[in-house]
Amino acid sequence: MRVLLLNGPNLNLLGLREPGLYGADTLAEIEQRLGAQAAERGVELSCFQSNHEGALVDRIHQARGQVDGILINAGALTHTSIALRDALLGVAIPFVELHLSNVHAREAFRHNSYLADKAIGVISGFGPASYELALQGLLARLRGQP
Amino acid sequence: MRVLLLNGPNLNLLGLREPGLYGADTLAEIEQRLGAQAAERGVELSCFQSNHEGALVDRIHQARGQVDGILINAGALTHTSIALRDALLGVAIPFVELHLSNVHAREAFRHNSYLADKAIGVISGFGPASYELALQGLLARLRGQP
Amino acid sequence: MRVLLLNGPNLNLLGLREPGLYGADTLAEIEQRLGAQAAERGVELSCFQSNHEGALVDRIHQARGQVDGILINAGALTHTSIALRDALLGVAIPFVELHLSNVHAREAFRHNSYLADKAIGVISGFGPASYELALQGLLARLRGQP
Amino acid sequence: MRVLLLNGPNLNLLGLREPGLYGADTLAEIEQRLGAQAAERGVELSCFQSNHEGALVDRIHQARGQVDGILINAGALTHTSIALRDALLGVAIPFVELHLSNVHAREAFRHNSYLADKAIGVISGFGPASYELALQGLLARLRGQP
Amino acid sequence: MRVLLLNGPNLNLLGLREPGLYGADTLAEIEQRLGAQAAERGVELSCFQSNHEGALVDRIHQARGQVDGILINAGALTHTSIALRDALLGVAIPFVELHLSNVHAREAFRHNSYLADKAIGVISGFGPASYELALQGLLARLRGQP
Amino acid sequence: MRVLLLNGPNLNLLGLREPGLYGADTLAEIEQRLGAQAAERGVELSCFQSNHEGALVDRIHQARGQVDGILINAGALTHTSIALRDALLGVAIPFVELHLSNVHAREAFRHNSYLADKAIGVISGFGPASYELALQGLLARLRGQP
Amino acid sequence: MRVLLLNGPNLNLLGLREPGLYGADTLAEIEQRLGAQAAERGVELSCFQSNHEGALVDRIHQARGQVDGILINAGALTHTSIALRDALLGVAIPFVELHLSNVHAREAFRHNSYLADKAIGVISGFGPASYELALQGLLARLRGQP
Amino acid sequence: MRVLLLNGPNLNLLGLREPGLYGADTLAEIEQRLGAQAAERGVELSCFQSNHEGALVDRIHQARGQVDGILINAGALTHTSIALRDALLGVAIPFVELHLSNVHAREAFRHNSYLADKAIGVISGFGPASYELALQGLLARLRGQP
Amino acid sequence: MRVLLLNGPNLNLLGLREPGLYGADTLAEIEQRLGAQAAERGVELSCFQSNHEGALVDRIHQARGQVDGILINAGALTHTSIALRDALLGVAIPFVELHLSNVHAREAFRHNSYLADKAIGVISGFGPASYELALQGLLARLRGQP
Amino acid sequence: MRVLLLNGPNLNLLGLREPGLYGADTLAEIEQRLGAQAAERGVELSCFQSNHEGALVDRIHQARGQVDGILINAGALTHTSIALRDALLGVAIPFVELHLSNVHAREAFRHNSYLADKAIGVISGFGPASYELALQGLLARLRGQP
Amino acid sequence: MRVLLLNGPNLNLLGLREPGLYGADTLAEIEQRLGAQAAERGVELSCFQSNHEGALVDRIHQARGQVDGILINAGALTHTSIALRDALLGVAIPFVELHLSNVHAREAFRHNSYLADKAIGVISGFGPASYELALQGLLARLRGQP
Amino acid sequence: MRVLLLNGPNLNLLGLREPGLYGADTLAEIEQRLGAQAAERGVELSCFQSNHEGALVDRIHQARGQVDGILINAGALTHTSIALRDALLGVAIPFVELHLSNVHAREAFRHNSYLADKAIGVISGFGPASYELALQGLLARLRGQP
Repeated sequence: MRVLLLNGPNLNLLGLREPGLYGADTLAEIEQRLGAQAAERGVELSCFQSNHEGALVDRIHQARGQVDGILINAGALTHTSIALRDALLGVAIPFVELHLSNVHAREAFRHNSYLADKAIGVISGFGPASYELALQGLLARLRGQP
Repeated sequence: MRVLLLNGPNLNLLGLREPGLYGADTLAEIEQRLGAQAAERGVELSCFQSNHEGALVDRIHQARGQVDGILINAGALTHTSIALRDALLGVAIPFVELHLSNVHAREAFRHNSYLADKAIGVISGFGPASYELALQGLLARLRGQP
Repeated sequence: MRVLLLNGPNLNLLGLREPGLYGADTLAEIEQRLGAQAAERGVELSCFQSNHEGALVDRIHQARGQVDGILINAGALTHTSIALRDALLGVAIPFVELHLSNVHAREAFRHNSYLADKAIGVISGFGPASYELALQGLLARLRGQP
Repeated sequence: MRVLLLNGPNLNLLGLREPGLYGADTLAEIEQRLGAQAAERGVELSCFQSNHEGALVDRIHQARGQVDGILINAGALTHTSIALRDALLGVAIPFVELHLSNVHAREAFRHNSYLADKAIGVISGFGPASYELALQGLLARLRGQP
Repeated sequence: MRVLLLNGPNLNLLGLREPGLYGADTLAEIEQRLGAQAAERGVELSCFQSNHEGALVDRIHQARGQVDGILINAGALTHTSIALRDALLGVAIPFVELHLSNVHAREAFRHNSYLADKAIGVISGFGPASYELALQGLLARLRGQP
Repeated sequence: MRVLLLNGPNLNLLGLREPGLYGADTLAEIEQRLGAQAAERGVELSCFQSNHEGALVDRIHQARGQVDGILINAGALTHTSIALRDALLGVAIPFVELHLSNVHAREAFRHNSYLADKAIGVISGFGPASYELALQGLLARLRGQP
Repeated sequence: MRVLLLNGPNLNLLGLREPGLYGADTLAEIEQRLGAQAAERGVELSCFQSNHEGALVDRIHQARGQVDGILINAGALTHTSIALRDALLGVAIPFVELHLSNVHAREAFRHNSYLADKAIGVISGFGPASYELALQGLLARLRGQP
Repeated sequence: MRVLLLNGPNLNLLGLREPGLYGADTLAEIEQRLGAQAAERGVELSCFQSNHEGALVDRIHQARGQVDGILINAGALTHTSIALRDALLGVAIPFVELHLSNVHAREAFRHNSYLADKAIGVISGFGPASYELALQGLLARLRGQP
Repeated sequence: MRVLLLNGPNLNLLGLREPGLYGADTLAEIEQRLGAQAAERGVELSCFQSNHEGALVDRIHQARGQVDGILINAGALTHTSIALRDALLGVAIPFVELHLSNVHAREAFRHNSYLADKAIGVISGFGPASYELALQGLLARLRGQP
Repeated sequence: MRVLLLNGPNLNLLGLREPGLYGADTLAEIEQRLGAQAAERGVELSCFQSNHEGALVDRIHQARGQVDGILINAGALTHTSIALRDALLGVAIPFVELHLSNVHAREAFRHNSYLADKAIGVISGFGPASYELALQGLLARLRGQP
Repeated sequence: MRVLLLNGPNLNLLGLREPGLYGADTLAEIEQRLGAQAAERGVELSCFQSNHEGALVDRIHQARGQVDGILINAGALTHTSIALRDALLGVAIPFVELHLSNVHAREAFRHNSYLADKAIGVISGFGPASYELALQGLLARLRGQP
Repeated sequence: MRVLLLNGPNLNLLGLREPGLYGADTLAEIEQRLGAQAAERGVELSCFQSNHEGALVDRIHQARGQVDGILINAGALTHTSIALRDALLGVAIPFVELHLSNVHAREAFRHNSYLADKAIGVISGFGPASYELALQGLLARLRGQP
């Protein structure tokens, strides 16, 4: 089983940017730890981050037929990008939407998501732990576990 | 560490009601399994379900000073009950909001939550697995784990 | 054929409260007359009134597999209770929504119903006669009559 | 006692159009059956259908002083015609608004009615049976029956 | 100078309908009096009333090149008919919008007009006198009087 | 019979300001001409203009028991001043609202009036002629003329 | 003269919950002090608190014909319960709405009240003193004092 | 293959009305040219224009079982007529919505269409050429051409 | 302790204007009575009324450092004046907002207040008694009384 | 005459993605066929597709002074990109907006277009045929054909 | 070249009021410094501050034909005064709108300006430096400097 | 002191595109002139323009710890890009938002900015001079100048 982890704009700043809000882990550390957790569960994890909406769309297209599920923290694009929504629907790969911070406790414009209604599920607010929870949730659904 | 699991209106129908949407597990089975998972993590889990908003408020009040965290699937009350919000704020116990189904994919009136902005985080859409993810998320935050 | 009549908050005041708006019949008189009309049509009618949303939800759950149709005058809860909606959907019993007064002629917040789009039909404005019309409408639909 | 039954645009297609939604009866059959039911109750029923708003307004004007009540299924004009509202108010004849389908379960623009707040009451969703229920409801109110 | 007076749906009921709101004059009396007032000012007045939007549109088309100005009390169509707006713009004849009652003091849906922003001016609330004021206002503008 | 003419902010610029929109007459000329027209009709006209909302309110208070009707072109205050509304209601003097330009053809924020629903009627768009029309409309109503 | 004091959900936490926001007095202390103040004014005060909407509705029904006025701090139900509104209207007892905190300074969803437009008056923001002010305001109105 | 061309209110003014906006062709010329283009493609074209909503509804009903597709430029009724929508759905004939002018560049109330979501497709802004494009689009879809 | 009582536009009409709504007391009587009540409580009361927003702002500025609290019935300016809000914030004097009538039972535009969220508290609906209640509420807060 | 065809995000998936919704043609096939059709009409067609908003903006800039018209299917960017709008206005090249699917029959957020009001016209819903219709529409307008 | 500096309500409190938000300079100091800066640039600066909307309107009228440009910090009136807008348009003098604080970072009701769309430009957020920037911006535009 | 100047989509067209709206200067000329002005003030200016949101985000990230302030004219992205907002917050560098044209005088969708509430201040409408004003405003704030 193969899973793709996508991170959108500004998530490359993790650990550097507002640690009180997002935690002290860098994105590399999170990706490494999640890769290990995935391996323990027999899952091969690939990772991609970009500040470019188009690059994220391109990467999703490449995943077509190559991965069984996607974990996506689209950052700010969650709230503005219909192109990402269409890319995910176009390749028809199940995905989980995740956020480090609790988006419901932030600005009103972060309460709308162009991805959520097409996701398996959404996880928001657990800091770096959101990644592991999202991986587990994805696997539970793909494997039909309760 | 003690955790309280709260389930709101109609969740006693689980396993009986729309299994395509909510899964085939009964609430008793979910509570039992989650209790076991909690015990493995050194957590004592107590459970309460009610179709009465007032009874849920009363139960939250009783939890004051008795539990370290709350997992709450408030069902329909998520979208209509400010009293639950006030009860959770009044006892000042950290809580996680969870849903079996993906509320973002349902009626518009289910997109608003009176609890979410005051929760640690929100988990939605993973069926019965949402409960275990919520427990893990709560513990990760309470224990300061990444 | 068995039918359950549900009345929500404040309908126990019928006959006492604003007779100009709701008529002079008490709820007991209405229930008795409707029971007789049901019996004439070969229908067994049971009745329940409560001012507690949770008690109404509980009663609907008990009706699961026990009745063929529900008549519901949810009163103020029509406009505020998603829990009642979920209960009715959860037990999958056909129901008719009814009102004594014409809700369209009253405050704007009474124009929304959380039940109506899932009901067989809605009857509003005929005073106590609304109950008999609702019973007939329910039976016509259940029996496939024109 | 004389009653006028008005049907608005497209109701002449009844029985031909979307029978799953509106039933298999033609409008002529419905009018004939309702006429018989009215006669049994000592009521003389006259019927008029038009696809023209203006013709419906003209017919309402003719009814001034000639009928004791109106049953109106204005179809699409329910949601768009203030002229019909003004005509009904202008002749000051009590009326009942009725619909074959449950308008609350359809497009949002069918949830508004320019007639409902001035009607005695509204009946929606019972298929052809809506007509008989509306007649009964009108008579109950005109005759002061409970 | 020739002027056309147009009256929309239900204005044929004038004098019969809600005299407290619209006055006791019939439309024929108003037309006659206005014709006389027009004649005194050297203006030939023609009059047309219909309950049919299409007939009003047709009549406006006929006026093309035949009249110098239009007085229009479109009644309920004021608030719902874009076709009337387009007809008036299509024939490019200056017009005054008028109302017997004060539309600002009535239902919210009467506060919007599809004609007003393209009219020379609007007169509302003076009962039958609104007609004479509208005629004077139209003439003042057509003749460039202060 | 005594009538008070009130003009609000910026109307002292009349004749100087945007003559294409408001006409070339100065306010003094308009007041003089209207005074003459009033006199012909046996009416004593007093006039007041101010750029100060408070001064207009004060002037309305002074009119209490002194005048039979008010003509008011409140200018920009039409859309922003509840104090003027309260003043007019407080002295209980019938009034007509008038505008030189057609407010419906201007910015959206000019479409709301805090005065209109309490006025006898509204006249808008006839340039300086709006004043005379308003006077006539007021007199027709006060004198019960058709 | 008899007065009923009603407190809604979470007000039993008073003194325990957010003292900075609500004060350090417990509800029992407030009720006791208000009872004494009432007695000084020749008024018999009875008190009831519940976290259950239905129980509050039931209590209001019991008050019918038994009390001359009601003081109600409905807490969160102020903003969500039409059933409470209907209960208060149903028993036709004059009431005053009160709040400890200034609801206008809190979340937007606390700015709407389903009770306020039917209350004698509203008092908000004076902490425990709101109760005494509400009692005085009620008595002033019931006794016609300035 | 038979196709019906429908034109709504004011389109009989084509060529006469605002040629800068709608072109210099009369409707007769457009119908004639389109008839020739249809004939070249083996299609029999019939044409109907009316300023009456009801007449358009009647004509659509007559088309039931008689034509394979409809081209409709409903003019102002596009934005106001649910009756036309229901007529088109009632006869279940595929249709294309077309406009001479670009409705998106005009008043906001022209941005809504009651027909568009049920049409095969929509063409707007190409002047008289919109008709030929609509015919081609309809045929491409009916014949399954790319 | 010094307190300033401010009254806004039209409150000089008190006792003259709509006594059914506002009571029969004149403002002078209310000020006199409140002054006496203040004196009993060891408070020096000064009073100011104006129909001019600017004059009220000026008076608030003069109060800077001179008074310990403000009672303000801003009348219509409550709903329209940000300048008053800024003045009160600028001088940083605690204030209570009060109204004679119950603003929640009046027009929708009276439901918004530019002052309320910055006030200690709000009192509405008790007629002239609102002044005394406001004074007590202010003192309770300033003196830290329960 | 030179024309540029622009395709936005995810249109490179054509033929692969949701053929029921978008048809079985690949983008290369569509471009090739359209190129041939253009050539027949004496038009040189160049094509560009990108998933990057910035790349589309860059390409539009390059077209300045190089092409006579643009056909643009901006996909998801239609609804979110003001930058594309500004680019098209900046180079001042006439353009036609086109869509494969009927956007009016899809999610509400697809009903808004940042391009449409500045386009010559819009074509939506004809599958791959939309491209040819758009080309014809563009040419008709550029060449002044009816 | 002559320039008028206008300051609206509460700006006389500058230096006294919330220095953290508005800076420690008094208005007199700001006016003096700006006068000197203007003089260096060959500009004669006159200054006026008032808490009265009417006085500001009067002052703008006096400026007609006397000054070449206006700098206006209307304070709270920015968001509420259409009269100021009309005054500025009436005298047709170019103006710059300025604010000390960043209005976009404050309450939502400060995000609307009745002046901004008619200003040359807007400057917001630079504290007392906003005045000098506004002067420079005005001069750059009046003198056609880049 | 180092300052970064960022220009967003389509600003590379400056001088070429709509000179009436944006001025005749090219971006290179503006950058050169601003660099000189910066140098005079002892500031080192670096410049970057891109039509790609992602490239702008990347460039902001590079500026972290390298510059003391940012001047940003984000063009169309001002109104659509939350990613830019997050980038600016992520690097925690003070910034000024600027626009050549007066955005308040343009389309409604340009009135919202995702940057403004986090900026030091905003400058809009002064053409190329906006750049110099923004530089001065930034320096005044960074250096604590009045």
